[in-house]
Amino acid sequence: MTQYSQAVDGTITPEMHRVAEREGLGAEKVRDEVAAGRLVIPANRVHLEGGSGEGAVKLDPCGIGRAVSTKINANIGASPNHSCREEELLKMQWAVKYGADAVMDLSTGGDLDEIRQYLISRSTVPIGTVPIYSMIAEKPIEDLTGDDILATCRRQAEQGVDFFTIHAGLLRSSIPLAANRRLGIVSRGGALLAKWMQANDAENPMYELFDEICAVMAEYDVSISLGDGLRPGCLADASDEAQFAELEILGDLVLRSREAGVQVMVEGPGHVPFDQIQMNMERQMEICHGAPFYVLGPVVTDAFPGYDHITSAIGSTAAAVHGASFLCYVTPSEHLALPGPEEVRAGCVACKIAAHAADIARGLPGSRDLDDRIADARSDFDWDRQVSLAFDSDRAGEIRLRGNDIDEDNSDDYCSMCGRDFCAMRISKEVLD
Amino acid sequence: MTQYSQAVDGTITPEMHRVAEREGLGAEKVRDEVAAGRLVIPANRVHLEGGSGEGAVKLDPCGIGRAVSTKINANIGASPNHSCREEELLKMQWAVKYGADAVMDLSTGGDLDEIRQYLISRSTVPIGTVPIYSMIAEKPIEDLTGDDILATCRRQAEQGVDFFTIHAGLLRSSIPLAANRRLGIVSRGGALLAKWMQANDAENPMYELFDEICAVMAEYDVSISLGDGLRPGCLADASDEAQFAELEILGDLVLRSREAGVQVMVEGPGHVPFDQIQMNMERQMEICHGAPFYVLGPVVTDAFPGYDHITSAIGSTAAAVHGASFLCYVTPSEHLALPGPEEVRAGCVACKIAAHAADIARGLPGSRDLDDRIADARSDFDWDRQVSLAFDSDRAGEIRLRGNDIDEDNSDDYCSMCGRDFCAMRISKEVLD
Repeated sequence: MTQYSQAVDGTITPEMHRVAEREGLGAEKVRDEVAAGRLVIPANRVHLEGGSGEGAVKLDPCGIGRAVSTKINANIGASPNHSCREEELLKMQWAVKYGADAVMDLSTGGDLDEIRQYLISRSTVPIGTVPIYSMIAEKPIEDLTGDDILATCRRQAEQGVDFFTIHAGLLRSSIPLAANRRLGIVSRGGALLAKWMQANDAENPMYELFDEICAVMAEYDVSISLGDGLRPGCLADASDEAQFAELEILGDLVLRSREAGVQVMVEGPGHVPFDQIQMNMERQMEICHGAPFYVLGPVVTDAFPGYDHITSAIGSTAAAVHGASFLCYVTPSEHLALPGPEEVRAGCVACKIAAHAADIARGLPGSRDLDDRIADARSDFDWDRQVSLAFDSDRAGEIRLRGNDIDEDNSDDYCSMCGRDFCAMRISKEVLD
Repeated sequence: MTQYSQAVDGTITPEMHRVAEREGLGAEKVRDEVAAGRLVIPANRVHLEGGSGEGAVKLDPCGIGRAVSTKINANIGASPNHSCREEELLKMQWAVKYGADAVMDLSTGGDLDEIRQYLISRSTVPIGTVPIYSMIAEKPIEDLTGDDILATCRRQAEQGVDFFTIHAGLLRSSIPLAANRRLGIVSRGGALLAKWMQANDAENPMYELFDEICAVMAEYDVSISLGDGLRPGCLADASDEAQFAELEILGDLVLRSREAGVQVMVEGPGHVPFDQIQMNMERQMEICHGAPFYVLGPVVTDAFPGYDHITSAIGSTAAAVHGASFLCYVTPSEHLALPGPEEVRAGCVACKIAAHAADIARGLPGSRDLDDRIADARSDFDWDRQVSLAFDSDRAGEIRLRGNDIDEDNSDDYCSMCGRDFCAMRISKEVLD
C-alpha cells in the first residue's frame, strides 16, 4: 500500500511521522494532507529499506505540499557526450549540501542503470527520474513498445526511484497547438513522445498505458510527477493554448493516479513573465485538484543566459508564494551547457533563496527564525556568528575575508564597508541606548 | 531653471528630447511626466556641459519614472580603509558596461573631492552622492553646522553631481520609534543625523535647512533623492511605525521640493518580506504624490549573505512591477565587504534582470524584444547569435565553451546538455515542420 492509500485508510505511517517531525507539524495533519492529495511523500519502499555495501544509506522521507516548507529539486545527470559516475555523485552531494530536498537523475548517456543505482544507494533524499530517457538509450523512439515502457518503469521502481516524470498529458490533438509557437516543444520527454505519436500514428503511449504504469508505481509506492510536455520554452509562448490544453488533461490524470493509489504531483512552466505567474499557479491548483505543483523556474526573462539561476529564483519565489510546493532549480549553465558542481551549488542556493523567501512571505511558522538570528548577530557585531549562520557559510566567510585588508586586531569589530567610524549600526546603538 | 520648472512652464528641453528618443516616447509625454513630478531627469547643468581634459565626457540624460523603462543604480566608493581613484573609475566603468543607468559615489575615505570630480568628468550617466558623507570626513558629526551643510551641498553641486540623497525626513520625534527595532537605524545618513540631533538637542538640520538646500540644488538642477533614514535593516523591522512615520514626512517634502522647482525622488526599503512589497509600493506612491520611488533591494531574506544580489533581485522585481522606478543594485558582498569590480558586475546584472523582468511584466512596449530575438536564435540553433545577444555575452560565451568538451566540428549544432540526438528542439522541429 502507498502512503496515499494508507492515509486514506486513516493510517499514520512511520514516514508521515518523520515528515511531521521534520516540519514541526502534527502527524494527523500530515496524514490528512496526504489523504487529500495535497501532500506527497516520495518514498519508494526499496529506497526506504536502503541498499547494502559501503556507502549505502536509506531514504529520509520528506514531504512536498503547501502545508509544509517549500522544497527544491536539483537536476543532475550525465549526457551522451560526458558521463562519469563519480562526477554525478559529487554533484548529488553538493546539491544536498546546498539545500536540495530531492535530486533528479536525468542522465541520457553512460551506463544509465548503473549510475542510477549508485546514486539511489547513496542518497538520503528522494531520487526522481524521467524513465523515457532510458527507454531511448538503446532504440529509436519510434520503435518504443508498450512492453518497453512498462519494463523500464518496473526496472527503475525496483531500483528504488522515488518519483517518475511521466509525460502522459500531451495528447495527439495538442501537438498542432505547438506549431504556432516561437519555440515549439522544449520538453525532451514531450518532444520524444510527439515524435512517437507522429511516427506511429497513434495516441501518446504514456496516456494509453497510464493505468498500467500506475499499477507498477503503486506496487513500489513510486510517486508520479505529471510532466508538462508542452511547457513554454520562452516568454512569448507562455500561458498559451497548448500549455493549458495539456493542463486540463493533467487535471484528469491527477484523479486517475489517486484512484490507483499513486501519489501525484504536477509539473509546470518554464518560461513565464512575472505578471502571469500568480494566474498560472491559481489555475493549476484549481484544475489539478490541489496536487502539489512542481515548477521549473519559471524564468522571467530570456535575455540573460549565464544568469538563469537568478531569472529563475525570481519566478520561483512568486510561484511558491502563489501556489507551487516544489521548485526545480535552474543553474547558471541553463540553456548553454551541462552544469558542473559549482553551477549545481549556485543553482541550489538561488533556488533555496526562493523557497525560503516564499515560506516567509506565506507566513509559515518559524520560517523567519534564521533571518532573525542573523539580524541579531549583525546587531551584536558578531561576525563569526553571522558567517556561521549564513546559509552558505563558506561563501560568506570568503567574501568577508577578501574585504578585510584592514588590521587583523580590529577586524572582528567592523567591516570594510563603512570602517569603524561610519558604521550606521554602531552609531545607532550609541544613540538609541 | 530646472527641468521641472521648465516642464511646468510647458518647455521641452533638449534633455527631455533626448529622454524621449532613448525611450521611444513623444517629447510632449516626457515633458508632461516631468511636469507632473512623475519623471525625473537627473542632470546637473555642469555635468551637461561636461569637463575638459583627457577622458572628459558629458552627461547623456536619462529619465527615471513609471512612464519609462526601469532604471538601475550602482553604488561605488572608497572607504576609510581602502581608497584608490583608478579602482573607483574601473568600478564605474564596469557598472555602466553591465547596465547601470546611474552611479552613486558613496566614498567615505580618501580624497573625496578629487575622486568625485574624477568620476563626474568621466561619466556619461548621472552621478549621485550622499553629501553628509563628506561633511563628516573632517569633523565629528556633532560639530556639523548649517553653514557646513550648505557649503558642502554647494561644492558638490558646482562639481556637477546630478542627484543628492538628503535624509531630511527623519525627525527627532521618530527616533524613539527605532528603539524597539531589532536593528535600529541602519542608514548611515540616518544614524549620523540621529546622533547630531541627540548631541545638539535640536531637530534634523536637513529638515530645518530644507528650503536653503533646495535653493542650492535648484540653481544647478541637482535632483533630490529623499533618503529613508529609517528604512528597515532586517525583515523583522519591515513596514513598522518608524518606517512609515518617516514616509509621511517624505511625502510633505516632495511637495516642498517641487515648490522650490527641484526634481524629487523618494528612497525606500531595504529589507522587506516578499508579501509586503506591493503594499509598500502602493503606499509610497500614494503618500509621495507620484514621485519616482528609488528602492534599495529590497532583499527578501536575511539568511543568505554572499548572495544578496539574488535576494535583492527578487525583491526589486516585485518592487518595480508594483511601483518603483529606480532600483539600487545590491552586490554579493553586501553585509560583508566593499565590492570589487566582479561584485559590481554581478550586482548590476542581477539588478538589470529585475528591471528588465519588471518592464516585461508591466507591459512596457518593446521590453520583450530582446527576449524574443534570443528565443529565435535558440530556435535557429544559432549559438553565436544566442551568445552575442545575451545581456552578458562574455559570461554566456564562457559557459558555452566550458561545456563543450564535444567535437569541434559539430559544436555549432548542439550543446552539452542533450547532445545531438536528444535535443528537444531538434525533435520538435522535425515533428512540427
